[in-house]
Amino acid sequence: MILCDIGNTNVHLLKEGEFAIESLKRFSASAFSGEVYYICVNNSLHATLKRRENFIDLESFIKFDTPYKGIGIDRICACKSVYEGVVVDAGSAITVDVMSGGKHQGGFILPGLKAYEKAYKDISMRLDIGINREVLLNALPKNTKDAVSFAVLKSLILTIQNVSDGKNIYFTGGDGEYLSGFFKNGIFDKMIVLKTLINTVEELKKGKFKC
Amino acid sequence: MILCDIGNTNVHLLKEGEFAIESLKRFSASAFSGEVYYICVNNSLHATLKRRENFIDLESFIKFDTPYKGIGIDRICACKSVYEGVVVDAGSAITVDVMSGGKHQGGFILPGLKAYEKAYKDISMRLDIGINREVLLNALPKNTKDAVSFAVLKSLILTIQNVSDGKNIYFTGGDGEYLSGFFKNGIFDKMIVLKTLINTVEELKKGKFKC
Repeated sequence: MILCDIGNTNVHLLKEGEFAIESLKRFSASAFSGEVYYICVNNSLHATLKRRENFIDLESFIKFDTPYKGIGIDRICACKSVYEGVVVDAGSAITVDVMSGGKHQGGFILPGLKAYEKAYKDISMRLDIGINREVLLNALPKNTKDAVSFAVLKSLILTIQNVSDGKNIYFTGGDGEYLSGFFKNGIFDKMIVLKTLINTVEELKKGKFKC
Repeated sequence: MILCDIGNTNVHLLKEGEFAIESLKRFSASAFSGEVYYICVNNSLHATLKRRENFIDLESFIKFDTPYKGIGIDRICACKSVYEGVVVDAGSAITVDVMSGGKHQGGFILPGLKAYEKAYKDISMRLDIGINREVLLNALPKNTKDAVSFAVLKSLILTIQNVSDGKNIYFTGGDGEYLSGFFKNGIFDKMIVLKTLINTVEELKKGKFKC
């Protein structure tokens, strides 16, 4: 059995209990012969996957009560794994959601680190310099690369901290481990989305859902 | 006499004491017959302006002592107008500089509001929704447009606030007036760059500089 979280850039897989990340560009549905339970936020892939008998879309089995309109299934899965805390999925975008007593309180969406780098590049060639991930955050920058890096990291950190209110902050996604290092109460958990897929498949196999 | 601050998107002008903003696309050096004192951060325009006898580049007359490497002449001019406080120029990028006792302490560069909007659009079509400038910042967002708007504004505000340390925050640039409204200690001053140009021309006319 294979579990798949298909995003806009990467696919997170759990294959016989082993975790892997694959680039979406390299992902080929025809390479899988057994049962594949998946969620997918990539609209252009949906139709292809629906045509494959061995691919089972879990989205309709995952229930999530929230006042938020239009939340993606990947964010739902991450949130369902956290009863109390902040959930940060740091990929192409950085989604930040607050869970309290098992209830979703709302959330917000920051650009991902690569999206910031591209945004600066699009403003001016002079700002096409990337992010210095080692920049000091306790001193005002004295050059352009640090000025850009400080702005990105400081603004991300302060905004996430502002809604955390001392709660644990659970990070996942490609830049999750790096960003979690800036928070005393930061926990990196690459499995946070897949955990909900595991639970859903277990319930499905127990016959909890009637198809 | 005309004073000009030529940016990457707009030109800020002072013509016979009257302030005006013109789109860079509409700006034509040949339309000016009298003396034009200017600064320019747009590299592609520099050569054209240097060839015009009535255009006088003020950059070399404006002295600014700072440990920061590679600061633009527009940022220098804005900073020179502030003895104590934070200087925010909110245009295509949002530059934030700290002045203390007339000395530049360093600064950082956030993307401008339009650059954020484009960054979200580039991440996913679903995020191509613009910024809701009226979004509530005291409640967690419950839909995608507010999630994006909250993230942008909250992150800008917190980062600027973080370095202000109770000092006045002087805003200029196209989104300066709007952003200044979020700060108790925010002051909008559209003339902050041009003030330095006025002072420099006065000193020049008094013969302070030897050409």
